This record gives sequence, structure tokens and C-alpha cells, in this order.
Amino acid sequence: MSFIRKAIKSMDGYTPGEQPGQGKFIKLNTNENPYPPSPAVKAAVIEAIERLPRYPDSLATSFRLAAASVLNVDPEQILCGNGSDDLLTILTRAFVEPGAKLRLPYPSYVLYKTLALLQGAEPDEQPLTADWLPSAAFAASQDGVQLAFLPNPNSPTGTRAPREVVEATAKSIGCPLIVDEAYVDFAEEHCLPLVDSCSNVIVTRTLSKSYALAGLRFGYLVAPTELVVELRKVKDSYNCDTLSIAAATAAIMDQSWFEENRRRIVATRQRLTVALRELGFSVIDSEANFVWCEHSSAGAQPLFQQLKDRGVLVRYMKYSRWREGLRISIGTDEQIDALLSLLPQLV
Amino acid sequence: MSFIRKAIKSMDGYTPGEQPGQGKFIKLNTNENPYPPSPAVKAAVIEAIERLPRYPDSLATSFRLAAASVLNVDPEQILCGNGSDDLLTILTRAFVEPGAKLRLPYPSYVLYKTLALLQGAEPDEQPLTADWLPSAAFAASQDGVQLAFLPNPNSPTGTRAPREVVEATAKSIGCPLIVDEAYVDFAEEHCLPLVDSCSNVIVTRTLSKSYALAGLRFGYLVAPTELVVELRKVKDSYNCDTLSIAAATAAIMDQSWFEENRRRIVATRQRLTVALRELGFSVIDSEANFVWCEHSSAGAQPLFQQLKDRGVLVRYMKYSRWREGLRISIGTDEQIDALLSLLPQLV
Repeated sequence: MSFIRKAIKSMDGYTPGEQPGQGKFIKLNTNENPYPPSPAVKAAVIEAIERLPRYPDSLATSFRLAAASVLNVDPEQILCGNGSDDLLTILTRAFVEPGAKLRLPYPSYVLYKTLALLQGAEPDEQPLTADWLPSAAFAASQDGVQLAFLPNPNSPTGTRAPREVVEATAKSIGCPLIVDEAYVDFAEEHCLPLVDSCSNVIVTRTLSKSYALAGLRFGYLVAPTELVVELRKVKDSYNCDTLSIAAATAAIMDQSWFEENRRRIVATRQRLTVALRELGFSVIDSEANFVWCEHSSAGAQPLFQQLKDRGVLVRYMKYSRWREGLRISIGTDEQIDALLSLLPQLV
Repeated sequence: MSFIRKAIKSMDGYTPGEQPGQGKFIKLNTNENPYPPSPAVKAAVIEAIERLPRYPDSLATSFRLAAASVLNVDPEQILCGNGSDDLLTILTRAFVEPGAKLRLPYPSYVLYKTLALLQGAEPDEQPLTADWLPSAAFAASQDGVQLAFLPNPNSPTGTRAPREVVEATAKSIGCPLIVDEAYVDFAEEHCLPLVDSCSNVIVTRTLSKSYALAGLRFGYLVAPTELVVELRKVKDSYNCDTLSIAAATAAIMDQSWFEENRRRIVATRQRLTVALRELGFSVIDSEANFVWCEHSSAGAQPLFQQLKDRGVLVRYMKYSRWREGLRISIGTDEQIDALLSLLPQLV
């Protein structure tokens, strides 16, 4: 007699990626940025502490103004969230009626399915093509599908559908298409222009990866202004706090830090990709801050364990009805060197 | 063709209390604490900044351990939220099916009604009694009512139902009873013991008011452990951020700051209550950090405006089918003196 809704009771809880005590492992398992954030973040946080007794700005105006200028969009097109997870939750609650369907690719971010189930909706999983891209079935309009999530680049592979493909998908799918660009800052191209050219495209972003602020919980979305007005009704009034708004604003204004960090991550990713291939791994070209690899002979699960025993934590992922492999986050050059020095004995 | 759910489109958005530019007004309108938080908060935030590149602890363990010790409960009975609004959202999504009813007193916190509508449920508003307490109809079991919110003390009056009344309500109501204790730290008594004695009672708290941390967004609930396990499935994985967890932990550990702050607020509230009565106001005895007052001759709306014109911001509230009045947050002694020096010319 717990009163909990059946939909919740029958769900499994989400298991976050392993977060061992600091310093114990080289941590390449949860796609965090290995470098410290812009030094402007620390100064902004310290300056904001004295404002903590007051409620925050419910619309995070300082961030929206700064981001609008960097992204070349209207500040009224931006909605901020307590991490992009908060925004994905808001979007699901805004668009999806209980009993309807929520479309997502498989494999992709497990949260999408959880959000569908929480809303009492049906997850409509559409398997990726063999080269890890959204299928024709994903793009097809279908009665009852009220929202679609397209992570681009996707995890666990870092593969990205070109903008023309996303645009064609938006035009055919018949429901709002959320382009989840959590990793796009490490990619060659993004889909922000589609927010203007397709009325059903919303782009979500996060500062967790490319601004080295996973602990801050700050994300934003870009949508048509008339939709932002509606989405504001669904969010908690004060979903972003004073410290995170200050930190996020400082972070996005420091574009020279951002460009330099991006350059380093992309260069290390390229070096890791080449080295893994030389060791007999099949590695998909990634446009994110991680790579997905499968070895021709060594099993992914034993490799994961042997690396862990030696102090290097990567992510072992096994998708039922699909395949298994390792997802390795891009660390510092020193961390990747440590990984690469271990692998020859293990494969 | 905006695809937004009808329930959302037909809703009004929430209008947060006025937050004018700093220093322009004596701000007695949004129940913030007028004093700075414990100095331990600043130190904890600064120390935590270096952990921002990593994801936070998804269960805010440091806070739960500290709070469990202060409150004398099991850490596994505690769930943390991004403000108690986040917890109220989680509770609604966990317990209320679309089409069901969510019970709330009228007048009370407007968010309750919003949460019902967002969930596609029906707000079941039960008017308070003439002395601003929950009615017999509020406590009555009824088919289809799947959750009830009882703010205690309530806003806008600061009135509180005694624990025995809450206990009797819990035993009769036939659904989970959320005792929203946002203001309880300024009251004579709280309802935490009911979490153990009644299986359907959950208590929510916030650090916004009594710890002077409205800008931080940190709240917690205390519930039976088996319910906490289910509620964890509904929250965003990382709903609390690294800085807020560190700050909240430091704040709740500093109980001597807390006791001293509480003593000052309660003393100022008593002084304000007496002074307002001498000026011809009817003032209900409050157990919160604000008072509700109605004047025998001066209208509440003109009074609000005249005070605002003179640099003092209070909250004018008008409840349809009910009455109107001023809700005045307890400021510093100097702020309350400034208010009291203006009032004799206005009433």
C-alpha cells in the first residue's frame, strides 16, 4: 500500500556512472572534461556568494544575454535548466500526453526511455542503422508519437547525423524533434540554424562537458520564442541557482578558454583513435569527447576489468540486441598515455 | 500547431515575487532571510569549486549524513532536491495519475495547483476554516484523491495546525500527506515524528528561509525509506549540484548560527506583531518568518503602493472568494523600524 504509481514501481532506477574516491583512478568513464574550467568561473562564484539569501533570477537573464551573443540567437529563444536533464524533463512534460509515444534511437541516452515511462508514455525505440545513424523508421511520421529525442552526436559512439539529415528528419517526423547537442561542441557542425528554419526543432546543450562544469548542473535550450513562453510554465520557478547562473555566465563568456579546451580534446581524441586502431581496435570516428571501440580478439568486459585493476576506469557497455564495447572518455594527454601504455599487454 | 499539451497551454505561468535591483528597496515581500548565512557556507563553496569538472554525488550523501544527525532520522529516509519545489514536483509525479485529484488547502502555496495541472490531475481545493486552519473536508478520504499537500505553517498567515491535528488528518485522508514545512523552523513544533508513526506522512523542508539560502535551491524531504527508494527513480539523476551540496552541508552543521538566527527572527516577529496591532491592524499570530495583517480602515492595496513609493516592498495578496491583506516578511530590526516609522502616517 505504498501509493506509488504503477509506472514508477515497475521501473528500474538509474545507475549513474561509477564515481570512485578522488585520486584513486584515472577516470575515463563518464565523459567529464579532464581540465579545470575557465578561471573566470571561480571569481564569478565567489562574487555571487553574497547574493545567496535572495531568490535567484528565475530566468537566468545574465546567462541568456551572454549565450545569445555567443550563439547569435535571441535571448528570448533560450531557456536555462538545472543541467540539460532538467530541460529534457521539461520538454517531455510539455509535449507528451500519458498514453502517447516518445521516439528515441537505440542505443542512446538511457534517460529518454526513463522520461517516457515517468510520463506514462510508451518509449518508441528505433534501432540505429549499422553505421550508428538514425534510421528511416526514426524519421517517419506516426500517429501518437508526440516527441522525438535525437542525440547528435550520439553516445556511445560519438557519431553525428549531418545537418541535412536532421533537417529532413524534422520535416518528416510530424512532432517536435529535440536535437540533444550535449556533445556538439566537439563536433564539426551543429543544428542551431534549424531552430529558425524548422518550427519543430529544439536544440538542447549542456555546460557539463565542453565547459568542464558537470558538477554545476547547467544546460540551456534554444527554441522558437513562442514555445519558450510555454516551456517556462513547466519548469520549477527557480530551477537554476544563483551560483550556477553566475558560473555559467562567466564560463560561456570566456570563449578563448573554450576554443583552446576544445582544440586540446579534439587533438587527443585523434591521437587516441589512431593508437587504438594500431592495437587492433575497431574505432568509430567520434565527434564527441569519447570514443567507442571494440577489439577484434580481446573481450570488452575482461579488458574493462583488467584496466580497472590497473587504476584506469573506462565504461563497459553492453546493449542487448546489439553489441558490446568500451566507451573511453578523452582525458588529458598524460591520462591517455597511461591508458595506452597498459593496453599492449592486454590485447 | 505548437504541439504543446492542452493542459499547459491553458495554464497561466507563475509570477515570482518582485525582485527589484539590489539596494533600491527594503525588501519584505518574498520571505527571504534578511541576514547572511553561516560563514561556513562561503568556505565550503570555495573549497568545492575545484570539484566542478566532475558530476556531483547523485544522492547528496554528505548533506544526508549531516541532516540525519541534526534531525535524528536515518540518512536513508532523506531525499534532497533542487529547492523544495523540486521535491514537490517529484512527489506529484510519483503519486498522482493523470485524471486523479490532488488535494490542497485554499489559500495556500500556488505551486500546488500548478503541479496538479501539469500532471493532468484535478486540483481539489478545500477552503481553510475561518481561523485559517485545514477543514474537516480537507481531512476526509475521497475516491480519486491520490496526494494531499498541507503547508504547515501555511502562507500567507503563518498559522500552523497542531501535530495532533496533522496526525488525525494523516489517519483519515487515505492518501500520502505531504507536510510542507518550509517555514517550520520558525514554529513551536514540527511533524517529523509523524513520518515514523504514520506510514503516509512525508515532510518537506527547505534551506531557503531558515538558513538564508534562497539563492542556493536546496531542500530535502523525510519519508519512509522504502518510499525514498521509489522517489529516487523520479528525480533527475543529478538534481543537486556540487556547490549547493557543499553549502547546504556546511549550513545545516552550523546549528549555533541557526539557533541564533531563529531567535532574532522570532523576536522581531513578536515586536512587529505588537506594533502593528497598536496601529489598528488585525494580525494573526504567526509561526513563520512573515506576518499577515489587515487594517480596520486603510485598504491593503493603497497601503502596499504607498509603502512601495517610500521604498518598502511588502506583498499585497488578494484571494478571490476570500479576503485581501499584506504579507510582511520579517526583516532586520532596522528594516522593521523603517517600516514602522512610515506606517503611522498611512493608516
